[in-house]
Amino acid sequence: MKKRLFLSILPLFLGILTSVKAQTAQDSIQLRKLYDVSLLNGQSYEWLRTLTKDIGPRLSGSAGAEKAVQWAKKELETLELDSVWLQPVMVPKWTRGTPETAYFTTDNSEKTSVPICALGGSIATPANGLTANVVEVQGIEDLERYGKEQLQGKIVFYNRPMQPDLIETFRAYGNAVDQRGAGAMEAAKYGAVGVIVRSMNLRQDDFPHAGNMSYGDLPDEARIPAAAISTNAANLLSKTLKSNPETKFYYKMSCKNHEDVQSYNVIGQITGSESPDEYMVVGGHMDSWDLGEGAQDDGTGVVQSMEVLRLMKATNYKPKHSIRVVLFMNEENGLRGGTKYAEVAKNQNQKHIFALESDSGGFTPRGFSFDASDANLQQVLKWKELFQPYLIHYFDKGHSGADIGPLEGEGIVLAGLRPDSQRYFDYHHAANDTFEIVSRRELELGAATMASLVYLFDTYGVQ
Amino acid sequence: MKKRLFLSILPLFLGILTSVKAQTAQDSIQLRKLYDVSLLNGQSYEWLRTLTKDIGPRLSGSAGAEKAVQWAKKELETLELDSVWLQPVMVPKWTRGTPETAYFTTDNSEKTSVPICALGGSIATPANGLTANVVEVQGIEDLERYGKEQLQGKIVFYNRPMQPDLIETFRAYGNAVDQRGAGAMEAAKYGAVGVIVRSMNLRQDDFPHAGNMSYGDLPDEARIPAAAISTNAANLLSKTLKSNPETKFYYKMSCKNHEDVQSYNVIGQITGSESPDEYMVVGGHMDSWDLGEGAQDDGTGVVQSMEVLRLMKATNYKPKHSIRVVLFMNEENGLRGGTKYAEVAKNQNQKHIFALESDSGGFTPRGFSFDASDANLQQVLKWKELFQPYLIHYFDKGHSGADIGPLEGEGIVLAGLRPDSQRYFDYHHAANDTFEIVSRRELELGAATMASLVYLFDTYGVQ
Repeated sequence: MKKRLFLSILPLFLGILTSVKAQTAQDSIQLRKLYDVSLLNGQSYEWLRTLTKDIGPRLSGSAGAEKAVQWAKKELETLELDSVWLQPVMVPKWTRGTPETAYFTTDNSEKTSVPICALGGSIATPANGLTANVVEVQGIEDLERYGKEQLQGKIVFYNRPMQPDLIETFRAYGNAVDQRGAGAMEAAKYGAVGVIVRSMNLRQDDFPHAGNMSYGDLPDEARIPAAAISTNAANLLSKTLKSNPETKFYYKMSCKNHEDVQSYNVIGQITGSESPDEYMVVGGHMDSWDLGEGAQDDGTGVVQSMEVLRLMKATNYKPKHSIRVVLFMNEENGLRGGTKYAEVAKNQNQKHIFALESDSGGFTPRGFSFDASDANLQQVLKWKELFQPYLIHYFDKGHSGADIGPLEGEGIVLAGLRPDSQRYFDYHHAANDTFEIVSRRELELGAATMASLVYLFDTYGVQ
Repeated sequence: MKKRLFLSILPLFLGILTSVKAQTAQDSIQLRKLYDVSLLNGQSYEWLRTLTKDIGPRLSGSAGAEKAVQWAKKELETLELDSVWLQPVMVPKWTRGTPETAYFTTDNSEKTSVPICALGGSIATPANGLTANVVEVQGIEDLERYGKEQLQGKIVFYNRPMQPDLIETFRAYGNAVDQRGAGAMEAAKYGAVGVIVRSMNLRQDDFPHAGNMSYGDLPDEARIPAAAISTNAANLLSKTLKSNPETKFYYKMSCKNHEDVQSYNVIGQITGSESPDEYMVVGGHMDSWDLGEGAQDDGTGVVQSMEVLRLMKATNYKPKHSIRVVLFMNEENGLRGGTKYAEVAKNQNQKHIFALESDSGGFTPRGFSFDASDANLQQVLKWKELFQPYLIHYFDKGHSGADIGPLEGEGIVLAGLRPDSQRYFDYHHAANDTFEIVSRRELELGAATMASLVYLFDTYGVQ
């Protein structure tokens, strides 16, 4: 009996096996097509050239950001998607004003100029600048030890570096960035009059790195100006303070917070052939800091995400689910775009099953990290071999992306592209984040890798 | 009986298990140490600065090469190794002479200048330069189709590009480089008067890329001058030829082959504590092409190899086998250093069990390729998990390194560091291969990764 049953289901079983094999072959072919089109006939690099060289920096609320929105909408409209639209979102606006100046001096006669930049969200110094003695600390934890007596009237200098011995640079960033984000707010509570923060940079160089900071609930009158200082200058200042604890630091900044302004997420959609009411998102953020051209952060994510949909069309792939490219506004200093997108999706009962963000640079892709269940990760690991020819090897749980974070919930897999991260913080939020530092091949490999994952999730759904 | 035997060997078995576990923990700790010292207190980057910025290009037989030899010997002597010496080797000498000039013209009035460089080993053009019509071909295979009638008196323009759709750029290089190596020799047989070869470069830019070529057994009078042309200029020339097949190309080169000269491999050794007569080699090549600073090719391999021995000392690791750093001379145009090293090792019956070369750039390390048996590869795969925290994932059979190739034989494992290769050919043999394009972190990660593999082979031997 058992034997007969076995024999009777054998053809069925073999049929399944054959069809699994055929599907795998089909998957291999589709991945190869996606990589071929991206590498041989890609659009992402020329898009990036326009976005960085012609449009340039795109801080929320700036003319550059608006220009980028209009440009992306127009470009997406050339792709013959099923729909392209702008999703309105109010965003904060902060301006740097005239270039910052800063120096330190041990005797008031010789002044050593140092490269600084205001941190995003900071208030200005008094119009004539601000001078005070400096207390160097290794982090917010140190403030309590010094106490009000030693910090009152002083400039707090946060100088804990990113750790070079951490292989994953994003971890090193995570371990140091509280100084930038909350350093001013915390120092103000001890009566400090200003803060300067060592740039979040693993290199020793002369670029100050911008980035967001927050005063939390501090009342206006308690807020103090916050700047980043280049790593070289931080080293020099630290050395000088050791021999001259009375060193005075001067800086002048005219940055300003404004009223919120109207801006937009840019969205393009290929409507699904089988489950049009189930959505998959691929995106990056359109806004950037104002010092460079926002190339690696996050011009590459923007153009790679646009390229994913273009690759679908160029390879004649007709997705089962509705696939959207979403170019989020305001990741850097508010996350309003990501928040808005998730809010609208929720209000309109749009079932999102998958979202992928590229916001770790356009370097050689290594894989993906997933904000997903164990079962979902197991599903992904089944696809690992398909990626092997492309040297894509990293599939693990971890952070996906800030902009897609608000979509988190039951039944959705969130993923983040994981490129090689070793050089990312050499340029992050700094004036050297320009088109020239992006490798065309690396960018195109990333776009194809993203398109491949989107294809697989579309084909197999989220299990 | 069986049961009693089992019980009696159980403690032994558990003992082995415990000791395996302890050893694995010990390995983890040692790898972490190697990475920590390399990243926190590394020497490789400063060595590279000196080698590239102070010494500069190091073509075999040049003053730079000799300066580099003396410098490396002196630096190795500071490491308190057991011995440091120079191994004499005669090397070819070729000089570029005055900078090359080249242009093409469709009507003899308007001349379009193009960036070219003589290929290493090429003869000069006549003193006043060489002008001829051009036949564009897609490779050596094409010559036969054109035949003597169409090639006699012409300049053959080899324009088959490296394939961008190959993920592994070294494969793309391998598929195109015969045009550079043998293009002149083959075209001369059809009566061509010169060749120009599209640079081995995946980017479209203005750098001509040098590299070696050979005339094989062609008699002197049959030899014709060979130059590389930048990819941008190759594209332009190709386009021009399509509309104007009568386009004339002019180039002038004063390069020259000289008599062989004396040079050296630089060798440093830590003598093994248990098997001093069994040798393990780690190396890169000291010579470089003359246009840039020989940073990624192969300054990085040189300083990483030096760093491997320094890391052993700095972590107080006392190897069982004798470990040598060998800085090979003349990889680029003769392989005399690698050949000599293997010859001496053979003549002196020095048993070599392992050799590792870094000659694929100092980019983020991904793993190693092995010229080894299946059993050896299985041995390596057991160590894979130890490398996981460092994102080292690639362990496969493949090319090891040109300089260590002559050591091939029974009982030796040959390995090559495999860094990310996507940008390698952007700089390879060109004027832009300078210190500035090397990332300190990526270089240091590579050195630690190499040291880790050397440590493991030293600890476990070659099985």
